Amino acid sequence: MTRQLTIAIDAMGGDNAGDFVVPGAELALTRHPDCKLILFGDAKTLEQRLEGHPRVRAACTVVHSDVQVRMDEKPSQALRRGRRVSSMWQALEAVHKGDADFTISAGNTGALMAMARFVLKTMPRIDRPAIAALWPTVKGESIVLDVGATIGADARQLVNFAVMGAAMAGAIVGLRRPSVGLLNIGEEEVKGLEAVREAGQVLRECELPLEYHGFVEGDDVGQGVVDVVVTEGFSGNIALKTAEGTAKQIATWLRAAMRRSIWSRIGFLLASSAFKVLRQKMDPRRSNGGVFLGLNGIVIKSHGGTDASGFAAALGLGVDMARNNLVAKIASDIEKFEAMTGEGKSAPTANTEHETTLLKAANS
Amino acid sequence: MTRQLTIAIDAMGGDNAGDFVVPGAELALTRHPDCKLILFGDAKTLEQRLEGHPRVRAACTVVHSDVQVRMDEKPSQALRRGRRVSSMWQALEAVHKGDADFTISAGNTGALMAMARFVLKTMPRIDRPAIAALWPTVKGESIVLDVGATIGADARQLVNFAVMGAAMAGAIVGLRRPSVGLLNIGEEEVKGLEAVREAGQVLRECELPLEYHGFVEGDDVGQGVVDVVVTEGFSGNIALKTAEGTAKQIATWLRAAMRRSIWSRIGFLLASSAFKVLRQKMDPRRSNGGVFLGLNGIVIKSHGGTDASGFAAALGLGVDMARNNLVAKIASDIEKFEAMTGEGKSAPTANTEHETTLLKAANS
Repeated sequence: MTRQLTIAIDAMGGDNAGDFVVPGAELALTRHPDCKLILFGDAKTLEQRLEGHPRVRAACTVVHSDVQVRMDEKPSQALRRGRRVSSMWQALEAVHKGDADFTISAGNTGALMAMARFVLKTMPRIDRPAIAALWPTVKGESIVLDVGATIGADARQLVNFAVMGAAMAGAIVGLRRPSVGLLNIGEEEVKGLEAVREAGQVLRECELPLEYHGFVEGDDVGQGVVDVVVTEGFSGNIALKTAEGTAKQIATWLRAAMRRSIWSRIGFLLASSAFKVLRQKMDPRRSNGGVFLGLNGIVIKSHGGTDASGFAAALGLGVDMARNNLVAKIASDIEKFEAMTGEGKSAPTANTEHETTLLKAANS
Repeated sequence: MTRQLTIAIDAMGGDNAGDFVVPGAELALTRHPDCKLILFGDAKTLEQRLEGHPRVRAACTVVHSDVQVRMDEKPSQALRRGRRVSSMWQALEAVHKGDADFTISAGNTGALMAMARFVLKTMPRIDRPAIAALWPTVKGESIVLDVGATIGADARQLVNFAVMGAAMAGAIVGLRRPSVGLLNIGEEEVKGLEAVREAGQVLRECELPLEYHGFVEGDDVGQGVVDVVVTEGFSGNIALKTAEGTAKQIATWLRAAMRRSIWSRIGFLLASSAFKVLRQKMDPRRSNGGVFLGLNGIVIKSHGGTDASGFAAALGLGVDMARNNLVAKIASDIEKFEAMTGEGKSAPTANTEHETTLLKAANS
């Protein structure tokens, strides 16, 4: 029998003040009927939304919060205005206090990360958190991290990301030794990538619960060359958004091709069931849900512009992470790794090393 | 009447020792019949390849070179082995000596850039070169630079890239004030992007022959939001490769969908002319050709794995660049810009500023 989970939901986050949250929870409960929910948000609005969703109503408690973080708010603003009183903060606090197994929000990503760092704090021996995304590939799905939390990571942070991403891959698909690649560019002797090279050396030499593959390039991600792709947040975010944009662009071209002539219309009609499969594969809702890694608690970030089906997918991701004790797994892996290399948390020397790496890049 | 151009071709670069070069030149000559060619490479091989291509033979001179740079050679190795004697080096030297208007190679990118910097040198007031790529968008094509030459550019270099990219856009499509965006990530208050922000401020304030749009994200590139997308080489390369990989991935899914059932086969057959248009739009050969910018001469890099049609497209790109006096245009724009801001070439202060920016990023 599986343990009953409690999920803290920021029920007001996302476009249209999260109107997809309750229907999404409904869908998720059909797949995970043994979950309890705590919905944080405006009680009146939520009561209205719960009408017609008796299953969600039966499984949930509503906790009123006066303040909702806006999608366009800067993290610092959101912290000032929403500290303690916002639905986002309170959902995070439920995890911190042990009242919930994980939290999920479709709200403002920057604000959520800022509040999560405040409420949950980074794990021992982890300097900086990462956001891990699911990336659909020709083989299935890979994990890519970091997609926007930490800009310009040094070697030590990249190795931490590798350990965390591998733990997440284990939690999703039960891989014991997921393959891990470091995102890099092709040129052999290009300067400025000391951090990536150094991380590669550590991953190659250390005995970690992962299979280090080596460097991967941008076009390897979608081919599913590795289970986990590690990079710092700037290039990771750009890679993710670029892939989303390219898929959107090709979909536009495809729709135009469909409407091109009467023959193409008939043709696409005949092939419509094949197209349904293609549409499903290209459906961004399928891979909805970023996981914040490196914090003392599981935080799932859903796309703000998703719908009920996408929100349910993100909820399901959180269920997988919680059932597999992701945080404990990461803590134990990081501890083993640190014991191996004998490093402590963010010693001043680590910073100096980072500076040296960046200075070398600057002067190359 | 247009001026006759002479093109220096590294005829041995690319997969299969550039066997697509002569057929590609044949195609290009049908479009640009008034061009003269100098083919650098193994004379015996080239003589064989010229058989059956009387048009190329009539338009070309063959210059024998003993050494061919290998595709997997490190730039330093290639320089040691191929200096002065390789087809790649000699093609570059033809531009340097004024014997040719531009050079093209489908060979090793790193080696080509290293040799180009050696032979042609960077332009006055430009610290570092960039590689600009054509990026197919829903609106047509945009220019993205840098896609791999300069890792971790500072604000000044990013502004130089903007000026060079805008000049290239002018040379391709005759835009007088191309729109330019700086590639960035969404989070408003993420640290570590001082260089990008600083460049944005300069672009906003200076009177340059371009329309500064502001920041763009990865998914804006394929939507053709701006004519020119500026970024440093690491994220630019990753974005380009990721887009290529995503297109390949969707093409794989599409082919699988086509073969799914007898109905889908018939359907796709009926829609085949519409599919031809889609295939053309997704054809990577159409946008083949990177342009090395910031050097005293035009260098075009073709994909190594292209074919005759792709090589001809890259050759045509070079013709556009040369006919529009790209190098002179860039030199004049950069000079005007420097006069405006009163900065000199890579003064020690510029380096120190760069270091400061990177240190800030390191400590954030």
